[in-house]
Amino acid sequence: MSVTAARGFMAAGAAVGIKAGGEKDLALVATDDHQPVPTAAVFTQNKMTAAPVVTSRKHLETTGGMATSVIINSGNANAATGQAGLDHAKRMCDGVARQLSIPPEQVLVCSTGLISIPLPIEVIEAGIPNLTQSLGATDLSASDAATAIMTTDTHPKTSVVESTGFVVGGMAKGAAMLAPNMATMLAVLTTDAEASPDELKAALVAALPVSFNALSVDGATSTNDTVILMASGRAGRVDYKALHEAVAKVCADLAGQMAGDAEGATKVVRLWVTGAANNEEAAVAARQVAESQLVKCSWYGQDPYWGRIASELGSSGVEFDPNQLTITYGGTLVASGGVSIVHDEEKVRSHMAERHLEIVADLGLGQGSATILTNDLTHAYIDENMGTS
Amino acid sequence: MSVTAARGFMAAGAAVGIKAGGEKDLALVATDDHQPVPTAAVFTQNKMTAAPVVTSRKHLETTGGMATSVIINSGNANAATGQAGLDHAKRMCDGVARQLSIPPEQVLVCSTGLISIPLPIEVIEAGIPNLTQSLGATDLSASDAATAIMTTDTHPKTSVVESTGFVVGGMAKGAAMLAPNMATMLAVLTTDAEASPDELKAALVAALPVSFNALSVDGATSTNDTVILMASGRAGRVDYKALHEAVAKVCADLAGQMAGDAEGATKVVRLWVTGAANNEEAAVAARQVAESQLVKCSWYGQDPYWGRIASELGSSGVEFDPNQLTITYGGTLVASGGVSIVHDEEKVRSHMAERHLEIVADLGLGQGSATILTNDLTHAYIDENMGTS
Repeated sequence: MSVTAARGFMAAGAAVGIKAGGEKDLALVATDDHQPVPTAAVFTQNKMTAAPVVTSRKHLETTGGMATSVIINSGNANAATGQAGLDHAKRMCDGVARQLSIPPEQVLVCSTGLISIPLPIEVIEAGIPNLTQSLGATDLSASDAATAIMTTDTHPKTSVVESTGFVVGGMAKGAAMLAPNMATMLAVLTTDAEASPDELKAALVAALPVSFNALSVDGATSTNDTVILMASGRAGRVDYKALHEAVAKVCADLAGQMAGDAEGATKVVRLWVTGAANNEEAAVAARQVAESQLVKCSWYGQDPYWGRIASELGSSGVEFDPNQLTITYGGTLVASGGVSIVHDEEKVRSHMAERHLEIVADLGLGQGSATILTNDLTHAYIDENMGTS
Repeated sequence: MSVTAARGFMAAGAAVGIKAGGEKDLALVATDDHQPVPTAAVFTQNKMTAAPVVTSRKHLETTGGMATSVIINSGNANAATGQAGLDHAKRMCDGVARQLSIPPEQVLVCSTGLISIPLPIEVIEAGIPNLTQSLGATDLSASDAATAIMTTDTHPKTSVVESTGFVVGGMAKGAAMLAPNMATMLAVLTTDAEASPDELKAALVAALPVSFNALSVDGATSTNDTVILMASGRAGRVDYKALHEAVAKVCADLAGQMAGDAEGATKVVRLWVTGAANNEEAAVAARQVAESQLVKCSWYGQDPYWGRIASELGSSGVEFDPNQLTITYGGTLVASGGVSIVHDEEKVRSHMAERHLEIVADLGLGQGSATILTNDLTHAYIDENMGTS
């Protein structure tokens, strides 16, 4: 279960013909009574904002953070599509609104897929009536929805956390622009806790730095990235801190699944930068290492070449003293004081051969720390990203 | 000819045993009378500064910008090597100084190769006497030196510009950290023009933005990057503007050769960002596009997928309005007003199949422009960077 785990929500997923191969490509999440509920969202920072992001943001502003439904298509990002794209995003919301007898502003919309290709709006509109009729609160309904938002994902990504008296569940696809032809990271979370739009926004904003924003596959920020959190209130008021924790757990779980399913990746790497001047500098340094093509290639080659990590730390712009640098692979110290030290090479070799790598770089300067989840750069990544067809 | 084209300079290159394969790995450039001459240098911004960079910078400060010789080894970067590395860099200078009967501070030193491996200083010291004895002003000497500084370069890189009454010549290797196992971009330029260290520095600083700093292979800044310019003065005072132009031309020529010889690259891409709010923003946007793994993969696949370029421009942080964006591939307009437009697809396909691509992204906002030279991301790049052995 995912978005239907919390009381008050239904979901559906169907194949309407956006994807040429006949896979599921249209998903819907809605409240079971078609009444609007408090909803918060976080959108991409990319200024090349896709039409559905523009539309969803406007709708949330209009309703003051109340939504009834989210419609999501895969197979086309409806990005870089100009005024026609905005018209199409609106028509997706209108189609759902007609079927559920609600104002269109209560519908949010997400798209993921190729950029700069006109959306096949007619096949989407034609598919909406059947989609709304198939809305259900079952595991199968939730699974259909999670499948319908996939692009180059190899499996649906869902997560549920049961807390004291309430539930947070969610589904997600992709990670940043790791999905090349069909880009974007999308996530929809639901909860039966009672919370205002502002409280939901606060929970999302607190969860991001330790989940989706602590994940970097290829450094790209998509035109469509969106995370939505809806609260039905059926469980009544809950402990605020417990809600934050549950939302953060679901986000972190989904982000971890994204990293594990990143395009072409053979390694999931948990990188820590500690001992930085402050947390912000640690995050900057961690991202610089995680997004280095050279470092990513060495992980693919299972090569514990710490000099490349040191070089990226040194060029990240943060406060840095080579003589204070310490690096461990899988708990084994390989460099201290900025130079190689004698260590158990067999143990490091064995760690590098695993699927999950753990690397800690300590800058030895202060108390700042950050972590990032990332991947290696592989032949398969290039294969998947060489063309759009 | 390269560093020996200008009157007053000699060069040598030899195999002393740093590289396991027996290739040339030690180079020397020196004034023909062993007298110091005005010299300027620009070094890496990376805080993980390699020992030879620390040493050369100190020597130039001590002498007030006067040097007699530059010794360069390939096969080992002498970076992340702590105090031992500094001792080794000093011993390289001492070795040359003894042979040429000059103070060690008049010797500059560069290294390029693997990071964090102790330098085999004994074989270098043993090789210095023969190297200094083989110094010559011939084409062959210059060619030997240019060959001895190569790492994963497939050919030596040299350039000469003859101006009114004077000459600027140079040699270079690598581009940023495109060379994985044996990193670094190094360049040594010589001229017979008469100029002070400050004047030489000004010429270098003016040349960088349109040459080495307008080049990005993989976004990495090496621990060892160094550009050195020495002036013998044998041609007397020359036109200041002509000197700037000649230095810029040699630097741009060498940078172009680096881009053309980038690891595993099948494409050399000249990217222009125009119409930005100002030149600085144009440069930021151009670099963001040039360093995108996704964009680089699409170039490798000969795919004119402009949406990815648009997405990178939108996430670069510069002032940006999707509705003003125009993109051309090889002179053919493919996007205008931020959306795809009808164009000659065969002409674009044909351009994408060429080795040299020309792409212009116009932001439609102001007069700012910048250009960057870059490459595609290929299977061969990954092959070359998977391991250190």
